[in-house]
Amino acid sequence: MGKKVVTFGEIMLRLSPPGYERFVQAEKFNLVYGGGEANVAVSLANYGLDSYFVTKTPQHEIGQAAVNHLRRFGVNTAYIARGGERLGIYFLEMGASQRPSKVIYDRDHSAIAQAQPGEFDWDQIFTGAEWFHFTGITPALGDGPAAVTLEAVKAAKAKGVKVSVDLNYRKKLWSQEKANQVMGGLMDYVDVIIANEEDAEKVFGIKAASTDVTTGKLNEAGYRQVAKELADRFGLEKVAITLRESISASDNNWSALLYDHQNYYRSRVYNVHIVDRVGGGDSFCGGLIYALLAGKSAEEALEFAVAASCLKHTIFGDFNLVSAGEVQSLAGGDASGRVQR
Amino acid sequence: MGKKVVTFGEIMLRLSPPGYERFVQAEKFNLVYGGGEANVAVSLANYGLDSYFVTKTPQHEIGQAAVNHLRRFGVNTAYIARGGERLGIYFLEMGASQRPSKVIYDRDHSAIAQAQPGEFDWDQIFTGAEWFHFTGITPALGDGPAAVTLEAVKAAKAKGVKVSVDLNYRKKLWSQEKANQVMGGLMDYVDVIIANEEDAEKVFGIKAASTDVTTGKLNEAGYRQVAKELADRFGLEKVAITLRESISASDNNWSALLYDHQNYYRSRVYNVHIVDRVGGGDSFCGGLIYALLAGKSAEEALEFAVAASCLKHTIFGDFNLVSAGEVQSLAGGDASGRVQR
Amino acid sequence: MGKKVVTFGEIMLRLSPPGYERFVQAEKFNLVYGGGEANVAVSLANYGLDSYFVTKTPQHEIGQAAVNHLRRFGVNTAYIARGGERLGIYFLEMGASQRPSKVIYDRDHSAIAQAQPGEFDWDQIFTGAEWFHFTGITPALGDGPAAVTLEAVKAAKAKGVKVSVDLNYRKKLWSQEKANQVMGGLMDYVDVIIANEEDAEKVFGIKAASTDVTTGKLNEAGYRQVAKELADRFGLEKVAITLRESISASDNNWSALLYDHQNYYRSRVYNVHIVDRVGGGDSFCGGLIYALLAGKSAEEALEFAVAASCLKHTIFGDFNLVSAGEVQSLAGGDASGRVQR
Amino acid sequence: MGKKVVTFGEIMLRLSPPGYERFVQAEKFNLVYGGGEANVAVSLANYGLDSYFVTKTPQHEIGQAAVNHLRRFGVNTAYIARGGERLGIYFLEMGASQRPSKVIYDRDHSAIAQAQPGEFDWDQIFTGAEWFHFTGITPALGDGPAAVTLEAVKAAKAKGVKVSVDLNYRKKLWSQEKANQVMGGLMDYVDVIIANEEDAEKVFGIKAASTDVTTGKLNEAGYRQVAKELADRFGLEKVAITLRESISASDNNWSALLYDHQNYYRSRVYNVHIVDRVGGGDSFCGGLIYALLAGKSAEEALEFAVAASCLKHTIFGDFNLVSAGEVQSLAGGDASGRVQR
Amino acid sequence: MGKKVVTFGEIMLRLSPPGYERFVQAEKFNLVYGGGEANVAVSLANYGLDSYFVTKTPQHEIGQAAVNHLRRFGVNTAYIARGGERLGIYFLEMGASQRPSKVIYDRDHSAIAQAQPGEFDWDQIFTGAEWFHFTGITPALGDGPAAVTLEAVKAAKAKGVKVSVDLNYRKKLWSQEKANQVMGGLMDYVDVIIANEEDAEKVFGIKAASTDVTTGKLNEAGYRQVAKELADRFGLEKVAITLRESISASDNNWSALLYDHQNYYRSRVYNVHIVDRVGGGDSFCGGLIYALLAGKSAEEALEFAVAASCLKHTIFGDFNLVSAGEVQSLAGGDASGRVQR
Amino acid sequence: MGKKVVTFGEIMLRLSPPGYERFVQAEKFNLVYGGGEANVAVSLANYGLDSYFVTKTPQHEIGQAAVNHLRRFGVNTAYIARGGERLGIYFLEMGASQRPSKVIYDRDHSAIAQAQPGEFDWDQIFTGAEWFHFTGITPALGDGPAAVTLEAVKAAKAKGVKVSVDLNYRKKLWSQEKANQVMGGLMDYVDVIIANEEDAEKVFGIKAASTDVTTGKLNEAGYRQVAKELADRFGLEKVAITLRESISASDNNWSALLYDHQNYYRSRVYNVHIVDRVGGGDSFCGGLIYALLAGKSAEEALEFAVAASCLKHTIFGDFNLVSAGEVQSLAGGDASGRVQR
Repeated sequence: MGKKVVTFGEIMLRLSPPGYERFVQAEKFNLVYGGGEANVAVSLANYGLDSYFVTKTPQHEIGQAAVNHLRRFGVNTAYIARGGERLGIYFLEMGASQRPSKVIYDRDHSAIAQAQPGEFDWDQIFTGAEWFHFTGITPALGDGPAAVTLEAVKAAKAKGVKVSVDLNYRKKLWSQEKANQVMGGLMDYVDVIIANEEDAEKVFGIKAASTDVTTGKLNEAGYRQVAKELADRFGLEKVAITLRESISASDNNWSALLYDHQNYYRSRVYNVHIVDRVGGGDSFCGGLIYALLAGKSAEEALEFAVAASCLKHTIFGDFNLVSAGEVQSLAGGDASGRVQR
Repeated sequence: MGKKVVTFGEIMLRLSPPGYERFVQAEKFNLVYGGGEANVAVSLANYGLDSYFVTKTPQHEIGQAAVNHLRRFGVNTAYIARGGERLGIYFLEMGASQRPSKVIYDRDHSAIAQAQPGEFDWDQIFTGAEWFHFTGITPALGDGPAAVTLEAVKAAKAKGVKVSVDLNYRKKLWSQEKANQVMGGLMDYVDVIIANEEDAEKVFGIKAASTDVTTGKLNEAGYRQVAKELADRFGLEKVAITLRESISASDNNWSALLYDHQNYYRSRVYNVHIVDRVGGGDSFCGGLIYALLAGKSAEEALEFAVAASCLKHTIFGDFNLVSAGEVQSLAGGDASGRVQR
Repeated sequence: MGKKVVTFGEIMLRLSPPGYERFVQAEKFNLVYGGGEANVAVSLANYGLDSYFVTKTPQHEIGQAAVNHLRRFGVNTAYIARGGERLGIYFLEMGASQRPSKVIYDRDHSAIAQAQPGEFDWDQIFTGAEWFHFTGITPALGDGPAAVTLEAVKAAKAKGVKVSVDLNYRKKLWSQEKANQVMGGLMDYVDVIIANEEDAEKVFGIKAASTDVTTGKLNEAGYRQVAKELADRFGLEKVAITLRESISASDNNWSALLYDHQNYYRSRVYNVHIVDRVGGGDSFCGGLIYALLAGKSAEEALEFAVAASCLKHTIFGDFNLVSAGEVQSLAGGDASGRVQR
Repeated sequence: MGKKVVTFGEIMLRLSPPGYERFVQAEKFNLVYGGGEANVAVSLANYGLDSYFVTKTPQHEIGQAAVNHLRRFGVNTAYIARGGERLGIYFLEMGASQRPSKVIYDRDHSAIAQAQPGEFDWDQIFTGAEWFHFTGITPALGDGPAAVTLEAVKAAKAKGVKVSVDLNYRKKLWSQEKANQVMGGLMDYVDVIIANEEDAEKVFGIKAASTDVTTGKLNEAGYRQVAKELADRFGLEKVAITLRESISASDNNWSALLYDHQNYYRSRVYNVHIVDRVGGGDSFCGGLIYALLAGKSAEEALEFAVAASCLKHTIFGDFNLVSAGEVQSLAGGDASGRVQR
Repeated sequence: MGKKVVTFGEIMLRLSPPGYERFVQAEKFNLVYGGGEANVAVSLANYGLDSYFVTKTPQHEIGQAAVNHLRRFGVNTAYIARGGERLGIYFLEMGASQRPSKVIYDRDHSAIAQAQPGEFDWDQIFTGAEWFHFTGITPALGDGPAAVTLEAVKAAKAKGVKVSVDLNYRKKLWSQEKANQVMGGLMDYVDVIIANEEDAEKVFGIKAASTDVTTGKLNEAGYRQVAKELADRFGLEKVAITLRESISASDNNWSALLYDHQNYYRSRVYNVHIVDRVGGGDSFCGGLIYALLAGKSAEEALEFAVAASCLKHTIFGDFNLVSAGEVQSLAGGDASGRVQR
Repeated sequence: MGKKVVTFGEIMLRLSPPGYERFVQAEKFNLVYGGGEANVAVSLANYGLDSYFVTKTPQHEIGQAAVNHLRRFGVNTAYIARGGERLGIYFLEMGASQRPSKVIYDRDHSAIAQAQPGEFDWDQIFTGAEWFHFTGITPALGDGPAAVTLEAVKAAKAKGVKVSVDLNYRKKLWSQEKANQVMGGLMDYVDVIIANEEDAEKVFGIKAASTDVTTGKLNEAGYRQVAKELADRFGLEKVAITLRESISASDNNWSALLYDHQNYYRSRVYNVHIVDRVGGGDSFCGGLIYALLAGKSAEEALEFAVAASCLKHTIFGDFNLVSAGEVQSLAGGDASGRVQR
């Protein structure tokens, strides 16, 4: 069993029509469970770490099924609180070609959204831990979760646990003003930040000049500057920015950039034929955290993280069900997809 | 197109694991949409009436899919209001043999639960209508829906529309005290009441002596007295009581009793091998309303209603997808189930 | 490879909604291929005989798929003619409990319905054959198929091939008058007849006194008399009558009676919990033909045939996919259904 | 409820093996219902118009299921006649890469193919209507349907209803000579014509010089000339030609051209990754009719129609289940397919 | 987390055709993982105990999936050895009515069948444990597993861990002579034995007079004597005998008998409508072990175990996915199967 | 019925998770049966030849299902021996984009792997035959199968039957040394050899200079030289080399090269969007054998074989379910994938 790592956030029931059916056609839903930090926890468990996911789920069988889904893929669920009325739900319609995927959230009033400070024993949770990860979604769930997140990062810092955050701005959950204020307060405790092309601007007003995400054109110089500005403003150790060029709902170019105060690293670009795009960013975070904990260099860690998230796009569900060996093989250069017998 | 009939209430997304899978096993959910009054509306549409269902659903595609599900089976959805945040959900696990079916409700904060008086134009809705039906679930959804229900029954009465109610007590939605008070206030406008073995006691404290529903033994004399007491207390035209003897989750005996101030009628008893038990009571209401509107005698109407609901137990989903001819054939005595070529 | 046997008739595409779904609910159809004589051919192939099915199917892929379905289960398709426009189709909705199964036929204008005398080389077909079987459905398909059937039975007789017929009256295909006339003309060439409770009356006006099939009550004495009358009128070697008591669409009692001019044999009665009732009579024919060809006594052959058809009721599709050993085990008395490891 | 629009034609049961299975592999069929004019009716209902589809379907449950399928997606089915023996069927095998999709028609003898003049009350149907649409398939179904179509266009013209036709030549249904004669007779009543690359030549002998559809190379100048010739010969208001470059069964380039006597407009070209190609042309017609009725300019209407049909290629089934907003968003330039949360 | 319990044996991949399909019809297999002792481990985890399953599975993904399946349902897999070539497989065809279920084993050469003494650290495994359970299948897998089992029971005894065995004779795995010798050697370390109607005779030659399992008739007096003889011969604390009356593959009567040197207890008899009969005996063991560890009386423990296994028959897969509360509710008398809302 | 052709080898049960699910996600397996020589036999049956597949399968129903799968697609199974314990199994996980497909073999101890010389009557088998095909997999299954293969090629040669081999090196089955020795011994009897880019090097040490299969770059000159060297060393009539450029698991370029001592032919290159890549090489062999038997020129035969295998990549399962006409149409130049109505 590897090093102890902890993530904290919401896990939701995800319901998606089969194949490329639209919501109004569906007679069945495929169901999985997922959420930003839960997805990272599964990645880390797959890579062999002793991975804990902290959340709150209702006592009933739907809550239990979420817990079982995590256990199945090796996540330790011992610190999950049970209570509240409902599990958050999101409905996902898979896009194709020029038709975008659609997400309908039904996550209000969930058990974790109503969590309050004092419900989790962070001291026990962080005993022996080496890394703590959360995303910008968790504090956006409500004042309770925001306060609990602050509790958590403080406790982590006090125990010398490294802290990472994926900015992950969600406009349906909070305003940019609120995000700026709450996230700003949490940044004092953060060591590593991961963001996508838009997050830094939405949350902190740090903007890459002249990039329009709907055209898919990227402006690398602009993102370098965003990374540097984030690192400088918040005294961060590392800043990673994922770069998605969306050619269509079926095909994306995927790469990332890492800044460590000394160098800017730009990863290989993968042209990905998409099976399931959800959790792409989370799988990058999982890859990066694992690689850094495993002592890889910044450049290697970036390539590992991008390869991990490239593979995620080929796997149904929120979770990135790949081994470190599979990621390493792709990061090492074999992208031919030849059958392995 | 037959006579205009109106029902009002909640329609929910129903999610059930395939076959007899337990919630913790499910990787897929079958999805249908249903709810007490929506189910009655579909029955009435199937029988050829001009059937309207009134509710409120969110603007998003899940709300639209619920509307489409009603339209598919012939219900007129022109009076459905659109708005609110979410559609109520219920999870259904199918029981078998000694293992009971399980329902987990996730219906709080639904669009209809937050409806307020004034949102529906009852005057227009009841123009030309001959029957209005609701259940005890609708006022139990909250003070808003309770007030809207009162609005509706008053408007119906004012237009000379016949009003029926299915008591349908749900302990998870309100206390017996609250139910007694709210339902009592609505009974002034009701002409026909339908109840199951337990409802009269739970809502109005009217109890059949010595019947234990978990043993499946029925006490017919006791139910006659309950029917009479209900009819007398509320000045009702007719009282129907459905009688379920639960031998197991797979096999039930099903019959009913009708009292019309002159006679007590006891229907034939069907030994039903269950495909989907949900909506059994609703299909009884649909059968009874149709048969009474069609001018059948009390006795014939009772037999039609019981035969209709017998058939419902053999059909997946909340809706009773049978024609009047099919019901009539069973009510007329052919229960042999021989292949129809 | 066992003795050569030949059957002749129609094979149709059968489309049925999954589980107990009604037609108006279906989003998928399960598909198999079947038809009276094709079903018998598969039974005989399963029992190890060299079984040929003769029909005509269109050249296109749906016609080919029907041929493949027969090949898969061991039927020799070498004599099947290819041509015509369409394959007959029937839609099947599975009943349950008091709700009957429903069949909608869409078989008009099929390739075989348009077959004409001269299209099949009966001389070659019957070379080396020991048994020929057809049903009353084939001549009912039209004047062409009726003429071809007459061609076939004459050729069979000329080659000394034993001939059996399953009366199988279908009121949607022809009138009782037409059936009487056509079937009467064919009976000169028949050695063994199989009929269900109603066929003899519908086709030949031979009626068992006072049996009402919708009540499920059987009148054994009446059926003995029907058997004798059939045997005497047409100079038959053996007459078998299958006896179905339909308790519901889910549960039937199933047995049969055999008359051989010397004795009346009544089989064991099986209480069958039904998986798929279609092809029940055909599987009886298949069992009877096999058992007689295998040299079993009349009584043993009857028990084998009834056991075979009892098992058919537990198997999805028209075909009775059982081995002679499995049938023998049930006919031999082990009906406990204990797991075989 | 928007403007009243009417379409008339056949709706068929469509049966397709799951995924990319070949016919001979299929154990299940996915089923939807569709047909050229029904598909247009659904598009128009989706866009908010008061959309009526006129046809004739059998009384049985398969006929009813087709009606229900239309109701589900908002089409008004009040004018559908019931009767006849069967619903037309088509079997669809989905192609992939270099393997083409295959369609096997089994539509002869359908209820609508046997319709005769006098069965539809066109006067009532066109009261209040603003647009009537049909395709070249309907008159090809037989002399009856051809005569009914003539009845319809005359009635439409008499009521001042705008008439559009999609040429849609089907070589399996009639010869080019017959098509030329019948379609020629109908063109007097037509205002707007839509055709694909081949239709004008097959039906009216109007040929674009030197284009080979199997190479996928397009000859825009040629199509301009075809459009002009069609417009001039029949005195049309507008002519639209859809242009498909078939790279493979999986990938097509899709665009269109519109001529309005003043200008030729050429739309944007979409590189489409195909989910379901059937109904592509119909969705173009639906988009064009809606856009013209909504008062968009010729150029805007063309772009709307092409965007609508681009999206159709990503949706399973014949129907184009998209909203006007979704089409507008793509026509407005966002083809990135980014997830919409 | 409750008391530590340990089971040891084989977990297999189980492949079963959907529904009641026969093997030769199957185009899909449902897959679960199961095996006697694994099934008991899951029962105990469900009841809240700290449940460990010990086995050996291959390193590859099929081996991993078996481990994940156990983790999902709460079993601790920390002591599972990884290695060997293959996971054992069994194919299961579900019977119905008079057609028996069929099992085809393909378990030779599995990883656990090739395990050797010394591969498991029993000392560590039993530290803190209170109960050890195995079945007669494990030593039947080969001389290696038999030796490992002996290692285990000795270690358990040495640590004061209570030991139970389910005799579970499998004629395909070994002869009665071999079973007698090996099981006899293990019995010195056993405290509680569970057997079905046939095991005691097959393994130890202890026979209940005149019971024929294929008739379903039971001879209670005979089984009392068998229990006493087992208890006396091997100095056992308790002997339980499960009693299955097989009416058909669809319906069984199920009960059990317990002897504790002082009394014979006979449980309630459940008439079970079967969903999945596999694992019925294992779920009895799980119920009995839990109830005894929970301090229930012999009589209560017997009723809990029978109720638990009654519920198992209603659940798909080998595992008994029920909570202690659900079992207690049935054992407490509510077998009505009424919907729980 | 065309010319008699024979193939010999193993047929396995293939189990694959639905869609792109990973093994650890699977709750169902799709099942087909396949294997190198069985796949060739099906191709040849599809093309109208009298195609026999020779193997040994267990008596049980899984063995029977494999036989039925072959019969369904027209292969003659009369020479298949029955016996042994198990059917070989392979698990297949479908890759996508950068994630490779994975195969886990569980084929040890299969019935055919334990076959011994003398079990097959090669004299009878080759009577009237014109071609015999096997692959390098069969002798790799064990010394028994290797000896039987030698028996077979000697018998074929003696009867003047043309012999082809597909080298198909499998590193999991044997070492390069063993392969070299055994295959070398068989080559004396071989007329035509087919190999992929790597086989010649792995088995015979004949290497194309500087080609790295993971980059997808091909070195045509190198492969010409490999073909010549093979032809010269073993005195072969023809050598074909398939050339796969693996762009990703979803997209491959596919072509081949043929050498006949006079010329080198290089086929057209197909850019294939992959549905199921397994059996690609086998379908090439099937196409080549058919085309040569049909008297096509070397160049035509090569194009036919490449077109056949291009189509295979679009078909689920191991078998190439295409007709000669479909292949010819693609080989003739129509790769547009336009719908065929």
